[in-house]
Amino acid sequence: MKVKRAKPVSDELLKKMDKWWSAANYLAVGQLYLLDDPLLRRPLRKEDVKRKIVGHWGTVPGQNFIYTHLNRIIKQYDLDMIYLSGPGHGGNAMVAQDWLDGSYSEIYPDVSRDEEGMRRLFKQFSFPGGISSHVAPEVPGSINEGGELGYSLSHAFGAISDNPELIAACVVGDGEAETGPLAAAWHLNKFMDARTDGAVLPILHLNGFKIANPTVFSRITHEEVEEFFRGCGWTPLFVEGSDPMEMHRKMADTLDEAVYMIRTAWQREREQGITERPRWPMIVLRSPKGWTGPKEVDGKKVEGSFRAHQVPIPMTKDEHYAQLEAWMRSYRPEELFDENGAPVPELLELAPVGDRRMGANPHANGGKLLRALRLPDFRKYALDVPFPGSVEASDMTQLGGFVRDIFKLNKELRNFRVFGPDETMSNKLGSVFEEVGRDWNAEIYDDDEFLASDGRVMDSLLSEHCCEGMLEGYLLTGRHGFFNSYEAFIRIVDSMFSQHAKWLKVTKALPWREEIE
Amino acid sequence: MKVKRAKPVSDELLKKMDKWWSAANYLAVGQLYLLDDPLLRRPLRKEDVKRKIVGHWGTVPGQNFIYTHLNRIIKQYDLDMIYLSGPGHGGNAMVAQDWLDGSYSEIYPDVSRDEEGMRRLFKQFSFPGGISSHVAPEVPGSINEGGELGYSLSHAFGAISDNPELIAACVVGDGEAETGPLAAAWHLNKFMDARTDGAVLPILHLNGFKIANPTVFSRITHEEVEEFFRGCGWTPLFVEGSDPMEMHRKMADTLDEAVYMIRTAWQREREQGITERPRWPMIVLRSPKGWTGPKEVDGKKVEGSFRAHQVPIPMTKDEHYAQLEAWMRSYRPEELFDENGAPVPELLELAPVGDRRMGANPHANGGKLLRALRLPDFRKYALDVPFPGSVEASDMTQLGGFVRDIFKLNKELRNFRVFGPDETMSNKLGSVFEEVGRDWNAEIYDDDEFLASDGRVMDSLLSEHCCEGMLEGYLLTGRHGFFNSYEAFIRIVDSMFSQHAKWLKVTKALPWREEIE
Repeated sequence: MKVKRAKPVSDELLKKMDKWWSAANYLAVGQLYLLDDPLLRRPLRKEDVKRKIVGHWGTVPGQNFIYTHLNRIIKQYDLDMIYLSGPGHGGNAMVAQDWLDGSYSEIYPDVSRDEEGMRRLFKQFSFPGGISSHVAPEVPGSINEGGELGYSLSHAFGAISDNPELIAACVVGDGEAETGPLAAAWHLNKFMDARTDGAVLPILHLNGFKIANPTVFSRITHEEVEEFFRGCGWTPLFVEGSDPMEMHRKMADTLDEAVYMIRTAWQREREQGITERPRWPMIVLRSPKGWTGPKEVDGKKVEGSFRAHQVPIPMTKDEHYAQLEAWMRSYRPEELFDENGAPVPELLELAPVGDRRMGANPHANGGKLLRALRLPDFRKYALDVPFPGSVEASDMTQLGGFVRDIFKLNKELRNFRVFGPDETMSNKLGSVFEEVGRDWNAEIYDDDEFLASDGRVMDSLLSEHCCEGMLEGYLLTGRHGFFNSYEAFIRIVDSMFSQHAKWLKVTKALPWREEIE
Repeated sequence: MKVKRAKPVSDELLKKMDKWWSAANYLAVGQLYLLDDPLLRRPLRKEDVKRKIVGHWGTVPGQNFIYTHLNRIIKQYDLDMIYLSGPGHGGNAMVAQDWLDGSYSEIYPDVSRDEEGMRRLFKQFSFPGGISSHVAPEVPGSINEGGELGYSLSHAFGAISDNPELIAACVVGDGEAETGPLAAAWHLNKFMDARTDGAVLPILHLNGFKIANPTVFSRITHEEVEEFFRGCGWTPLFVEGSDPMEMHRKMADTLDEAVYMIRTAWQREREQGITERPRWPMIVLRSPKGWTGPKEVDGKKVEGSFRAHQVPIPMTKDEHYAQLEAWMRSYRPEELFDENGAPVPELLELAPVGDRRMGANPHANGGKLLRALRLPDFRKYALDVPFPGSVEASDMTQLGGFVRDIFKLNKELRNFRVFGPDETMSNKLGSVFEEVGRDWNAEIYDDDEFLASDGRVMDSLLSEHCCEGMLEGYLLTGRHGFFNSYEAFIRIVDSMFSQHAKWLKVTKALPWREEIE
């Protein structure tokens, strides 16, 4: 059955989605600023506002925009999709979305989907005893921590490996896009197999600024951006502008096109047996930083400027309170939430249902899907050494046989991978190639050794960052694997590994995160 | 005076250059294998060959090819040029070149430019008590260590910053090109100023393989490679093939074009005042891995395959000795070296002279050019605190004033820079912008703050790797600066910094390396 293009989304639906977006933005601003009176039932009072505002706004409306539109395609096409938030901060966006679709309150019943829950939702954000301002393990649906930047794409590629139905929508901030680990990861599309892996849908969020500087990708020509991504093997689709309704239309059409391209690529390989490397779609979303936020504060431009990055209104003058109130009321909360503070029914029906909600997708809570790895009896691989010095052999070679047999025993489960920067042979683990290939979906020559588009030894890219990142994404989605590298080079990912270890430590204290170890 | 295109190089000169290339390749193979009889005066005996061959051949002939051609343009245009060898190994190429042009023996007189010197040159390579197989501080002309990959381009950009006449020719291996730090560094061309900085000439050495795998850039389409580099803001020039004389012609023509483009960009900015960001040239050299080496060993393809990466003939069988001898004699050493083992006069006249030799360029031995940094009296920046708690202030803000005044005092020398990943403001060093701008040569909008194409605060790219790499390149070429970042993120460059510290430690024991501290 040939994949068909969808009919354009109705204007009516786009208007409802715009309301969802407003609700999410309202909830994100509320998290940033408010202590009390979450529905603004009375004029804003100083004591309703947090004393110290710590958090970020700049990335939030763009991420809320993306999330709103992803929900639509999940529902329309019944997609199995997870969301990776690459930008360093903006945890309030993902938390707002989780609260709106109910996945947050299911996990944290005290933050209920009503006025009292909204009050708690607002207060806890970036507040002593509350939650962090970036996306952290506490956020339902996340497998990627904000903060140290650069790993979102590698995590996404790890997640979709051996998950043929999964799409990982990965928002890459244009700041993050300047880091080395992220820059290398654009090339990971050469290692995916359209038959046995899912798809990564990168969305470069070109909102123009990082902390105090513009971003490189926002200040080169449109042609250069397009050439760059084509050169990386993607088909870039552009969504550019600032008028909300025009942007909703563009984004909806573009996502329909992206879904069409992904499903066509899958179908060509899975049903027609065409093995040519697909040119997967990616999206460039150029929208104002701090979109829908205050245009100007203290006489200086904020929306569309680096000043929108963190706290757009600093709350240091009396007039700021009126400004904040006007900003929050501009989303018309009275039309978004009912008398009890719950989202109005018109919004509720937009959310995906059950595990299709990105905050509840089991892939982002890998322990739910974990199946124990079948291990051979390690005693079988012992070397017989009758007396000292009587046998010349290598422990790593023996280990290679053990690892090969792990692949053999878990062949049907396809839940085990080995990662490393082109060192499988030199680390003497070459026996694994008796059982599986190397991951590779670029051109293959006759003389190459062990390359295979469905290979599960990811040793074919010389990037410690990408290999470690893919391993993390693979593990956090409930599978097994390890990274091997020389002692001298493993330190390249020291800092990255520490962050992963921190993630694991924090998840241990979260009862709803199922064990992945 | 308008820059003019050069006349094509004569066939006669290309033939001489081919001989130089043969001499360099011969010397590199000799370093890899031989203990004695460097000129092969007698048939090769087992005892003339090292017992354990440790080193790399794959990258060597390509790097020798590039170096030979760079020497030609240095002489023809009187260029001030340094060479950065990005590939992890292949130190024998750069050492061979240094020995050929005399810069090696000037520093290490016991490795003289005669038969006895050649014997020592061969024996010392990757041998107990000798020199390493990768480019290390011991190699004249180098500021970039092999091994941990990814920093060559950042080092090159650091070197040419505030060195308006310098060209850094930077060979990037196609393995190294897959690392994150290198991938990010292609974008550093947006931070260079054609008036106050020199030029980086990247040469992507597409020889197709890393250790045991093909490389990504060699297995995507030609169109993708071209789009990628255009997208990164370069004008890629392609030199592709395997026939030596055809390749010499292509490389010579291409380098003439690259020099023309660089000088035109300089002239437009310096004489015509055109400030548009230039599209600098870069070269893609696609040549066989292990070019001119053995085609086949033990029935398996070697030249043009991953098997040429390290030791192409393993010396484990008797027939290997004949094969090695035939390979070395294929370069016709009798035509390259005179009776005493010195390069024949025809070769000697090809080398640049004095400090123009890349092995003797003072920029690569930065202490030679170092001028002390003028520092203000730090006492002037002390805060008056009459009694505890009486003043509210920040130590970092005070430091910002001190750093600003360093810029002021060294304005004419232009020998000081600050590096960091967009954290100058948040680290409270913002006072520096009273004196200098941020490095930025992409588009600038009215509302931007402190951006300037000749800025010397490199905080405008969100890559710890690139900032640290540029700092290292800036310091090693005899200037001053520092890197600032949050405690949480500085660890990203832990491993990179350790390698830099190791470089400094080793240089301390080399009397010819002038102090840079």
